[in-house]
Amino acid sequence: MKTLFSDRIHDVPRSFIREILKASIKPEVISFAGGLPNRQFFPVAALQKAANQVFEEQGATCLQYSNSEGLIELRQFIADRYRQEQNISVSADNILITNGSQQALDLIAKITINDGDQVIIEEPGYLGAIQALSFYRPEYMPVSVGAAGMDCGQLEHCCASGSPKLMYTVPNFQNPSGVTYPEKNRKDIADIVSGQPLLLVEDDPYGALRFSGARVPSFYHVLPEQTLLLGSFSKVVVPGFRLGWVVAPDAVFDKLLIAKQAADLHTCNFTQYIIHRFLQDNDLDEHIRTISGAYGRQCRAMRAAIVENFPEDVRCTMPEGGMFLWAELPGGASAMELFTRAVDNQVVFVPGDPFYTVPQRRSTLRLNFSCVNEELAEKGIVRLAEVIKTMLG
Amino acid sequence: MKTLFSDRIHDVPRSFIREILKASIKPEVISFAGGLPNRQFFPVAALQKAANQVFEEQGATCLQYSNSEGLIELRQFIADRYRQEQNISVSADNILITNGSQQALDLIAKITINDGDQVIIEEPGYLGAIQALSFYRPEYMPVSVGAAGMDCGQLEHCCASGSPKLMYTVPNFQNPSGVTYPEKNRKDIADIVSGQPLLLVEDDPYGALRFSGARVPSFYHVLPEQTLLLGSFSKVVVPGFRLGWVVAPDAVFDKLLIAKQAADLHTCNFTQYIIHRFLQDNDLDEHIRTISGAYGRQCRAMRAAIVENFPEDVRCTMPEGGMFLWAELPGGASAMELFTRAVDNQVVFVPGDPFYTVPQRRSTLRLNFSCVNEELAEKGIVRLAEVIKTMLG
Repeated sequence: MKTLFSDRIHDVPRSFIREILKASIKPEVISFAGGLPNRQFFPVAALQKAANQVFEEQGATCLQYSNSEGLIELRQFIADRYRQEQNISVSADNILITNGSQQALDLIAKITINDGDQVIIEEPGYLGAIQALSFYRPEYMPVSVGAAGMDCGQLEHCCASGSPKLMYTVPNFQNPSGVTYPEKNRKDIADIVSGQPLLLVEDDPYGALRFSGARVPSFYHVLPEQTLLLGSFSKVVVPGFRLGWVVAPDAVFDKLLIAKQAADLHTCNFTQYIIHRFLQDNDLDEHIRTISGAYGRQCRAMRAAIVENFPEDVRCTMPEGGMFLWAELPGGASAMELFTRAVDNQVVFVPGDPFYTVPQRRSTLRLNFSCVNEELAEKGIVRLAEVIKTMLG
Repeated sequence: MKTLFSDRIHDVPRSFIREILKASIKPEVISFAGGLPNRQFFPVAALQKAANQVFEEQGATCLQYSNSEGLIELRQFIADRYRQEQNISVSADNILITNGSQQALDLIAKITINDGDQVIIEEPGYLGAIQALSFYRPEYMPVSVGAAGMDCGQLEHCCASGSPKLMYTVPNFQNPSGVTYPEKNRKDIADIVSGQPLLLVEDDPYGALRFSGARVPSFYHVLPEQTLLLGSFSKVVVPGFRLGWVVAPDAVFDKLLIAKQAADLHTCNFTQYIIHRFLQDNDLDEHIRTISGAYGRQCRAMRAAIVENFPEDVRCTMPEGGMFLWAELPGGASAMELFTRAVDNQVVFVPGDPFYTVPQRRSTLRLNFSCVNEELAEKGIVRLAEVIKTMLG
């Protein structure tokens, strides 16, 4: 059947995380893999109440076909929240509701990328973005991201030597590294790309989950015409509703809307009504404080266990929020090999390899701290430390 | 910003139906436009009950991230139903749950079509399919569909003169024409395309909504290796849940799954649980009989009013199920012109134009009968008849 398939399907990496999730289903395995929010904080009772209210108030309306843009009340809530929380002024008319922000990535790529078009991507970068974008066969321009944010020298080189159309970033508590771009770094980036025919995608699923330090202003403040803001209810309410969004300037919004119609007509209407009802009757900020408080404790416990148990030459980031730590083995040791050994010691994580667009042996690993309590975090790190010590000899 | 956009976005027709829906929001307008199921038959109370059971039984599980394939219990229900209703034996493992069957179209196109690949499409054909497919820049091979099904002479010519990869069909109560392919026609089609490197997409959202005649066997019976079956809960339960599916052979399923992951990770988990619960506790067949009984009465009322009021030389199909009638004006009169005049007389429909891949003046029109009761159907047809008579002189 090979000839039946499009060329683009051969360029897309299969989801490594998915395979890993299968491996870590056994209850005796401690998992730092995956990127799930902690289900302990899902507001089940409040959502049930909201769902019943929606059935009573909307009846058949919440079950009928709806418009492709999304529920206007929900889009207005999102616009209001941008204003209140971040002093960002956007119109509800420029917000498109998508099936999680993952769909926004697919739609953005669909309306912008021709085969071979250049796309700047963080190195390491979110593997779901790499998957979504790869279907449109871009030429990736990876730019390093580290504790100081994005490498502006590399970025300048990309813009001078080529003509990138898109730039994908997760500037807050990046997936996978946990890094947050400093304010100065964002300004420098904006100076470099301002006025270029390039759209900067600011994917921000974790921004609200800050447990230390102060919020850094969005790219939207320094690059309003070129920034596409992606957001999601997955990490701050629940992911199962599949509700994300993209904020886009008029010209881009119009194209995204056509792509959305063609892709699936519209996002689930029913869950949009429920989450809107939930947001009316519950204090989202208080809920977020509960989540980020717990994630902060878990992150600190994991970091403390790492400092205590890992060999000194294993490096590790110290995120101010989000869900991930990022570690690097010394001497170019293989994270994939560590993974294989770790499975045998009943602890799993995601090796760095799928977070790079250039396939080569990687020494980096992503450690998720949102789904393990402090005790489990420590226990898992002790297991992992044993494996690292054995492997590094 | 024009240079920012991909070439593919320029090939996609904007949704005409969407614009029309806006025009027909006024309460005094009788609408035969749109393709909505009748909300009067939405099982609101039963779905509310099912939702509450899901919250009680599943708790946070129904709100967490889930797998990309979809809920296995729901996929098993669909497989069982294919066996019971149509004597089609498929494994739940070959069923992928999508955001309505519209998303299945997008994913199928994504994994198969390179720029310029040939695609056979019904003429007239479902405009949502034209939109989804157009993003992948196929060369369309339109093949006429009429009361006798698909034109096999044209089909043979397409297969002999080119190498089409996909063939898109709605063989039951087609959208827009209401036509059902006769059994003999399906066999002839299968004989022509059998063994060719071509996938036949059988999109079947309306098949269960039969109000006269007997079911015609699916293409799956005569072409099991090459048929992709698309189905949906939108027309038989509710569309707002956005739940459809595609049945695909292993090799195709694997590729669709990668595309699904990249597109949006997975379909809304929560609505999958609810509809599965609903299907356990309610008699779907009885529910479908209620819906199709009403649609049948409405269709017959509309047909009767057409026979009584339209000029004799306006032709009209007589569907055995589904939601649409298809009429043709005599002498090449413009359906678009009729539409403009009809709006002034407070009745709307969809002109045939967007259902063709070759833009030219069309005399055909689609009349939806699912959302108008018998009285309203007659009243609207009388209004439309006045406009037709005036226009034709």
